[in-house]
Amino acid sequence: MTSTKSRPTNLNPLITDLAGLDLITDANQIAKLSQDYYTFSPVLQPLLADKTGDLVVRPVNEAEVLKVAAACVKFKVPLTVRGAGTGNYGQCVPLEGGVILDMTRMNAIHWVKPGLACVEPGLKMAAMDKQTRETGWEVRMAPSTYRTATIGGFIGGGSGGIGSVTYGQLRDRGNLQAVRVVTMEDQPRVIELRGDDVYKVAHAYGTNGIITELEIPLAPVYPWAEVIVTFSDFMTAARFGLALSNSDGLIKKLVCGCAAPIPTYFAALRSYIPDGAHCVLLMIAESSLEPLGELIKEFGGTIGYQKTAQEASKGITLAEYSWNHTTLHARSVDSSLTYLQTLLPDDNLALLEHLYHHFKDEVMLHLEFLRVAGSARPAALQVVRYTTEERLNQIIAYHESKGAFIFNPHTYILEDGGMKAIDIEQLKFKEMVDPYGLLNPGKMRAWLERSRL
Amino acid sequence: MTSTKSRPTNLNPLITDLAGLDLITDANQIAKLSQDYYTFSPVLQPLLADKTGDLVVRPVNEAEVLKVAAACVKFKVPLTVRGAGTGNYGQCVPLEGGVILDMTRMNAIHWVKPGLACVEPGLKMAAMDKQTRETGWEVRMAPSTYRTATIGGFIGGGSGGIGSVTYGQLRDRGNLQAVRVVTMEDQPRVIELRGDDVYKVAHAYGTNGIITELEIPLAPVYPWAEVIVTFSDFMTAARFGLALSNSDGLIKKLVCGCAAPIPTYFAALRSYIPDGAHCVLLMIAESSLEPLGELIKEFGGTIGYQKTAQEASKGITLAEYSWNHTTLHARSVDSSLTYLQTLLPDDNLALLEHLYHHFKDEVMLHLEFLRVAGSARPAALQVVRYTTEERLNQIIAYHESKGAFIFNPHTYILEDGGMKAIDIEQLKFKEMVDPYGLLNPGKMRAWLERSRL
Ligand SMILES: Cc1cc2nc3c(=O)[nH]c(=O)nc-3n(C[C@H](O)[C@H](O)[C@H](O)COP(=O)(O)OP(=O)(O)OC[C@H]3O[C@@H](n4cnc5c(N)ncnc54)[C@H](O)[C@@H]3O)c2cc1C
Ligand SMILES: Cc1cc2nc3c(=O)[nH]c(=O)nc-3n(C[C@H](O)[C@H](O)[C@H](O)COP(=O)(O)OP(=O)(O)OC[C@H]3O[C@@H](n4cnc5c(N)ncnc54)[C@H](O)[C@@H]3O)c2cc1C
Repeated sequence: MTSTKSRPTNLNPLITDLAGLDLITDANQIAKLSQDYYTFSPVLQPLLADKTGDLVVRPVNEAEVLKVAAACVKFKVPLTVRGAGTGNYGQCVPLEGGVILDMTRMNAIHWVKPGLACVEPGLKMAAMDKQTRETGWEVRMAPSTYRTATIGGFIGGGSGGIGSVTYGQLRDRGNLQAVRVVTMEDQPRVIELRGDDVYKVAHAYGTNGIITELEIPLAPVYPWAEVIVTFSDFMTAARFGLALSNSDGLIKKLVCGCAAPIPTYFAALRSYIPDGAHCVLLMIAESSLEPLGELIKEFGGTIGYQKTAQEASKGITLAEYSWNHTTLHARSVDSSLTYLQTLLPDDNLALLEHLYHHFKDEVMLHLEFLRVAGSARPAALQVVRYTTEERLNQIIAYHESKGAFIFNPHTYILEDGGMKAIDIEQLKFKEMVDPYGLLNPGKMRAWLERSRL
Repeated sequence: MTSTKSRPTNLNPLITDLAGLDLITDANQIAKLSQDYYTFSPVLQPLLADKTGDLVVRPVNEAEVLKVAAACVKFKVPLTVRGAGTGNYGQCVPLEGGVILDMTRMNAIHWVKPGLACVEPGLKMAAMDKQTRETGWEVRMAPSTYRTATIGGFIGGGSGGIGSVTYGQLRDRGNLQAVRVVTMEDQPRVIELRGDDVYKVAHAYGTNGIITELEIPLAPVYPWAEVIVTFSDFMTAARFGLALSNSDGLIKKLVCGCAAPIPTYFAALRSYIPDGAHCVLLMIAESSLEPLGELIKEFGGTIGYQKTAQEASKGITLAEYSWNHTTLHARSVDSSLTYLQTLLPDDNLALLEHLYHHFKDEVMLHLEFLRVAGSARPAALQVVRYTTEERLNQIIAYHESKGAFIFNPHTYILEDGGMKAIDIEQLKFKEMVDPYGLLNPGKMRAWLERSRL
């Protein structure tokens, strides 16, 4: 990936056009606001470490976003949208400098109806959840970074998370109702997308317009109890997780399984998990705790701890040991560790069992159960003992050869990390809304290679 | 099935023991309270038409139930529990006379917590729903008879219904939290069953104790919109129903598909369904209507009507065209029609398509989608053009030979209508709580044949 554009040298005319807006020109601050969590990847580290923008703008409303878009188009300056910068693959790291559009000041909730909220993109997901919960509704799914991550960044760069065991992923119809986006045309304008059209900008890494408003479906609030269940045998833990995820009568929000020795990286939880044990971390409706007990009995699990929703609301929360927080805790103990993201086939855990025995300690299994087209499956966010990029690629290739689908977290290219295929609808939309290719340049393969398509 | 017991001739001593209780001794009224909807079955009609109890007792609390149980044991009088008598297979028809224990006066709600309610068995399900909804929680699943059916009767003789597309069936762990039952021992007592133990009395046709209290898990309230979608091709309608049922991001309560000519039996809906069209009747969260529109588009369906929750709360409700109300409407036009109940395999509708073409008009397909172990499947409540019992049995045998599972509605024997197998746990429990076999005698095969087991 070599950049063809030279960096804008003189931003003064642009800065003049943006007079009155909240600008950050301090190089240190800009450098900080140019980074995300790609550092989880030893492959991405050298590629992105020195990338920075040239100016940060923090709009407070859509009118200001339109102003920034117009100025960037006028001077042909790249624009990279940023939420909280918690992405894992350098999604919001500007490859060609330019403006970082920090959305965190656009954080209002416009309205909440039963099952639906209209919000601004810079709203932190925890803040959104807190406010909508007062009306009896909560966020359907959130990344484990919900305390800092923005809803716009989740839609722009995330995939699913806590809640996906019930509602599937962001890409599933019904989990995103509508978006408003500002374009980067000569005359920037606002487009509202509803229905399936939302996928023209969802999970596009901010390359297809600047999201300024979203309608997000909500879930009813349950009091969520938290439970740690431990097992002496990993495959039993995995089978328990799958059975629970497929138990239609049990209401759950998180089913996360970690093979030993992953639990040893969870300092605050260690006393609840025997040495050598495998654990399953759960968020489950309080009213489902009693039948959960029967399922635990059936699988021979042991309860490490069980907290009511009230108790769980204080102190540590299991959510922050799940999804990529598992990786975070592992890396905070041993920074040579990295990770993979894998969707396992619907084969009753046969491939999982094979992979568990095949890779042993080199690829430690961390499972997140989620719904895919109506039934539960494990996704694996394996913690990997990294040696070389070559070996990492061998591991990936082995998974793929066996029928697992890898969402490669060691690339910042949209398509290579995701569904692999070029999304023609997204490309056509980009050609319309970003004709100069100024939005987060270098991230969308379809755009880079469009002359060959 | 021949009865070995002679009917109690003189009930006066029993009546004396029950002085002060609400008794019905009028023969006409007793006869009425001895019947249910077995009349849907031309096979059951001649077997049950003349069966009546000898006395109806209507207890108002558990203490009175204990009193009735003690008196029946003392005089060895059969006791058959009755809710609203809306069962389809003569579940509450007394085969050997005796006492009909009408539970409808025990209809209090003891408490409602988030996700859970504690109620008395004689509570009508619509009344329960109305009251719990005020706290933001509703009944998870209900039969289409919810207006009159009692919760005790649903647990005693029902299987699932409106809501099962999300929560599965009553037999699924988590859908019944606890029950209290009065036994028929020499010293009748109250037993509380929790966890998996509830299945010792759930769906036992009142042969394993008299339920006096239940803890029933609840679902969060959504505003339920109602939609009729029509299709010119039946298999497309079925595929749409399956896809919707498996759409994790769409919140639904009812997905009911009816092949032509079934919709012609729906007088009040006829103007919304073109002649010859197949229809899918839906209850769907208002917030999911927009993405539903995309799914309808994808399958080429046409919206017959769409009502908001507010509009749907007045006038006809689609729920009362679904489940066995479909059969009811068909039979009210043509009383020679009968029905079957079938669980189709998880084969992507292959067998369904075969059966549709194989039986044509003789077996009209009515589908109810429901969750089974985590994924959606169609159950069929086919409307059958009845000719002879022999032909009906041929039809059943053909289904079974192809891998469909028939829950035969043409038998009043517990095991023959349900899972076919003898439930050893239920039998062992019965031996303890009903040593004289007085509860609803003649219904449980395991008990009748226990000497051979
Ligand atoms: C420890 C850890 C755990 C994580 N767990 C999860 C998880 O469970 N599930 C998950 O999906 N992800 C997870 N992530 C990744 C990330 O935290 C989430 O996807 C998060 O929602 C991103 O939000 P953000 O505000 O930080 O977005 P950013 O990182 O700032 O942006 C993400 C992408 O969206 C684009 N974008 C941001 N705002 C807009 C906008 N208004 N308009 C258009 N494009 C926009 C950006 O350009 C960028 O490409 C995790 C990351 C870490 C480090
Ligand atoms: C048109 C129509 C539609 C229907 N739709 C459905 C449907 O969608 N789903 C479904 O599952 N069923 C359905 N049914 C069957 C029936 O309506 C339901 O199962 C209903 O819940 C039964 O409740 P009830 O109060 O009428 O019970 P009853 O018919 O009075 O009793 C049912 C059984 O439970 C026992 N019982 C009742 N109360 C107690 C108690 N307190 N303790 C112990 N045992 C007890 C009785 O002895 C009997 O064996 C339908 C029937 C009709 C006629």
